[in-house]
This record gives sequence, structure tokens and C-alpha cells, in this order.
Amino acid sequence: MNEQTDHTAGMSGLDYLRQRIMNWHGPGMADTMNMRLTSVDDGAATFEAFPEPKFYNPQQRLHGGYAATLLDSALGCAVQTKLPAHIGYGTIELKVNYVRKIDVSNGRLTCTATVIHAGRTMLTAEGKIVDSKGKLCAHGSGTFLVYPT
Amino acid sequence: MNEQTDHTAGMSGLDYLRQRIMNWHGPGMADTMNMRLTSVDDGAATFEAFPEPKFYNPQQRLHGGYAATLLDSALGCAVQTKLPAHIGYGTIELKVNYVRKIDVSNGRLTCTATVIHAGRTMLTAEGKIVDSKGKLCAHGSGTFLVYPT
Amino acid sequence: MNEQTDHTAGMSGLDYLRQRIMNWHGPGMADTMNMRLTSVDDGAATFEAFPEPKFYNPQQRLHGGYAATLLDSALGCAVQTKLPAHIGYGTIELKVNYVRKIDVSNGRLTCTATVIHAGRTMLTAEGKIVDSKGKLCAHGSGTFLVYPT
Amino acid sequence: MNEQTDHTAGMSGLDYLRQRIMNWHGPGMADTMNMRLTSVDDGAATFEAFPEPKFYNPQQRLHGGYAATLLDSALGCAVQTKLPAHIGYGTIELKVNYVRKIDVSNGRLTCTATVIHAGRTMLTAEGKIVDSKGKLCAHGSGTFLVYPT
Repeated sequence: MNEQTDHTAGMSGLDYLRQRIMNWHGPGMADTMNMRLTSVDDGAATFEAFPEPKFYNPQQRLHGGYAATLLDSALGCAVQTKLPAHIGYGTIELKVNYVRKIDVSNGRLTCTATVIHAGRTMLTAEGKIVDSKGKLCAHGSGTFLVYPT
Repeated sequence: MNEQTDHTAGMSGLDYLRQRIMNWHGPGMADTMNMRLTSVDDGAATFEAFPEPKFYNPQQRLHGGYAATLLDSALGCAVQTKLPAHIGYGTIELKVNYVRKIDVSNGRLTCTATVIHAGRTMLTAEGKIVDSKGKLCAHGSGTFLVYPT
Repeated sequence: MNEQTDHTAGMSGLDYLRQRIMNWHGPGMADTMNMRLTSVDDGAATFEAFPEPKFYNPQQRLHGGYAATLLDSALGCAVQTKLPAHIGYGTIELKVNYVRKIDVSNGRLTCTATVIHAGRTMLTAEGKIVDSKGKLCAHGSGTFLVYPT
Repeated sequence: MNEQTDHTAGMSGLDYLRQRIMNWHGPGMADTMNMRLTSVDDGAATFEAFPEPKFYNPQQRLHGGYAATLLDSALGCAVQTKLPAHIGYGTIELKVNYVRKIDVSNGRLTCTATVIHAGRTMLTAEGKIVDSKGKLCAHGSGTFLVYPT
């Protein structure tokens, strides 16, 4: 389980993420993968990502782990917008469907995620990845558990 | 769909991967993520991975995308060992369960993957990720389609 | 793989399903499970279902297989609306999230499904199950392959 | 979430299931679907199922919901064998891969399930369905949460 310690300095999830958009800083997975959070709202989050050959598989396409990383990031932030202060969360399962090959010619990827269910202890969210022309490349969903920090 | 062009120079999947273990070379996702294929057999593949803080999420744990990348790599290579020459493949869906937080203190991760079903056009595989002490951290499965190259 | 022979008498998927709504007849899983298709449109399908104690698990709640059956039915029909005549299809994977306990007190269940990706050989769809008060009980997605009949 | 009230009369999960094999009784989903628990052990459970045309989809094959029901039953019982007295559980997500068409000619189906991860609050399990000739028809996995009863 990917849990979180309280790195939010006592802010609500939504407040923390709004501040994070303004003060994006590495290092970390998002920087390593050329991804960044671009917007959040109540129950929703959007990431942008910029594929490069260093994220390719041996077949010279974008590795499936790249879309999985992008989806997990966006789903997790969408979930985080529903959490009050002092509540952490972690992904317990992630499911990705790959519906189109991706390489650098697809340009910037945009991943939008939306919370489907926000329970007291469990939340679920779904997301879609489209390329710079708006074509759907991958989609998926995840389940998250919350706990006190 | 993450498809493959014929980068195997006409070898069977198993022959290609055996050669790849001997001549590992970047750049590509495996290098970027500190992962490498360490063994293959008929219907099986093993990867090793070395987590670093540059793969962390904001909660200072290993990002869920890291285990997803490791699983997709190992599942894909296990599937590839079942393919004759001139047959490509691509992941169509990937499912990951996260059962333990991971950070650099877990040391080297080992991911073993095994083919469950090897059909003419569709293959499925499952895999597990354990840390340096043998503790299960994540597991999952994937579905793959094949096509001529 | 749950494939289909040409039981559609040469109709398109949408035409076949529209006729099926008008001429619903058993026997079959839908009858056994108290479920029926109530509407279809291009890329969408809706089922209604009426839980009874004979679908309970030992804990006296609706068995998880019931929601899975309802989702697979609705996802499959949504997919079928995208298919021309003489094209069959089958579910290759199904994923269900359970977010609320269900028993007979929830009354009639409604499952709405929508196609996410309609490719030449692979289609994906997602669906949601709500109870008689509109509360979300389960949701999920599936992947389908097509082939000539 | 498919939760359980304490229908086990204060027995451990394994003791309760061993007694249930000896005193199988309907009504309920297992009876409706021609399925029954045939063995349990620490972290494992086996079900048998007997397909009939009343479980077919319109394509005259076994409906995908049938294998999903069988898997959810076996996975749940495998998980239950790990639980002490006065602890309930519920499925939070189920994933099924369909790898072979099934109809009555496949004869008796056997589903074996095994616990993968048994944590304090979350358990995961995987399972396989084979037909009377031992051919793999479907496989899958699930995630379960526990709680006091």
C-alpha cells in the first residue's frame, strides 16, 4: 500500500494540491517522468505529461508503465481533493486499459481523473489519457484507502 | 495498445530475450527506472529493480507507477517467451494490487512473472514483486494481444 | 472468451438489441437473475435488475457475482451497439468495484453502460449500478474482442 | 461493499467453512447457480459448478457473470479461512479474465482460489477455473477488506 505521511502541513487535500500547482518542485516521480499536475477541483485532477524516448519500451513505443504512472498520479490527486486535513491515503489497486500506441509523435498527453465513489474509508476514481489531438490513448480506474496521519 | 515492431531480428521471443539479458543497453524505460531483465525461461521472466528517491510520490514512498512499470515489463517478457519469430505483442490491460508501502529501505525489488494462458491471439500473465527480504509488496496481472510484425 | 455465434439474423448490433427489448424471452442468464435490457442507444445500454434472497451470499447480502453479471450484461450490450451485422464479440476481461452493500431493501437496480473505446478489433466500456434511490452500489469496466461470425 | 454480519456463530473462518461443507444448505446464490464449496484449507478454497443453459447469454454460451460468481465465491472463502472469529469481510473489487468459451459440453467446472496477501485489514486472493478436462477457462483476483462483526 502506498500510504502518505502528513506532508500537507495540516491543509485539506484540495488546499494542499492548489498550493502544489503553484509551487511545483522536484525531485520525485513526476519530475523524473516529465509529468505535472495542472489543475484540481473538488473530485477532479488533471495532469500533463511529455513523453520522451527515455520512457520507451524495446519496441520503441511508450512503455505501459508510463501511462500507469500518469493515471495513478491523476487518480490519487482527484481522491486527495476529497480528503480533510490530517487524513492520508494510499492506492490499493490500479487498472489500466491501453487502447492506442503512444510515442513522441503523440505530443503532450493530458490525463483527467474523476472521483466515482467517496466513502469514509474507501474511494474510487477513473481517468482518461488523451494525446495532443484529443485521441484517447489509455484509461483506467483505481481504489484508495484512507487513514489518519 | 503498446505494440511492437520487429526489433528482434527474426528471433523467437525466448531467443531474443536471452540475448537481451547478455547485451543490456539503454536508453529506454528500464534504464530510466533502474530495472533490468535478469532471467527468462519458457513462460517466465524475472526483473530486478532498484528504487531511488527520484521515483517517490509526494508522500515520500515509491510511486505506484514504479511497481506498475516493473510488473508490465516482467509480464510482457514472460509473454514474449511464448512467441515465435515475426510475432509482435502489446499490453491491452494491466492490473496491479499494492499490498505494502515501498521505499529505499526495502532494497532491491524482484519481480517474477508467469504466463497463465497462451492462446493464439491472446495471452495472460501474472506477477509478484518482493523486496530484498522476500516480503510481498505488490502483485498483478495483464492481458496481451499478438499480431504479425 | 465468451464469443457469440450469429444469433442476430444478420442485423446490426443496435437493431438486434432494439428488437430484443421488444421481444424479451427466456430462458437464459438474464431471466435466471431477474435482469432485463431496458434501453439501448449508440454506444450505451441500460439494464434493470431485481435482487431476491436467492441471489444472497451466506452473509445475507447480494452476492458479488450478481453485480458482476449485471455489469457484464450491460457492458456487452453497449459494445454490441457499435457492431455492424455479421460481427460477433466476447468479453475478455471484467473488473468490478463494490462500493456499497446491497440487499432486497435497495429495490430495483439500474445499470448504465457506455462505450469508452471502439476500435476495429477491441472495444472497452464502463458501467455503474445504482439502487432505487440513486445511490451508487458498484461500478466497473470491461474489454471486448470482435470477430467475424 | 459486500460485507458480512456474524453468521458464523463465533467460529473462526476455517472452522465455519469446514462445517459449511458438511451442512450445505440453500437457498442462496450458490444453490441458484449450481455451485458448491468442496474443500477448504488454510488460505485456499475449491468450488465445483455445473453449468446449465439457464446460465447462458444470448450467444448460447455461459454468461460471463457465471465465472465471475464462481471466482468471487472461491476467492471469498479462501480469504475467510484466514480470519479469526468475530471478523467479517467483504469484496471490494473483483477482476476476471475470460480465456475460453464455456458451455454445457465443458462439464463440471472446478475453481481453486488461493490467498496471495493476508494483511490485518486487507487481503487479496487469486483463482482459476478449469473444466472437466482440466482446460483453463477463466482466472482472476480480488481484494477484500475485513472489519469486526
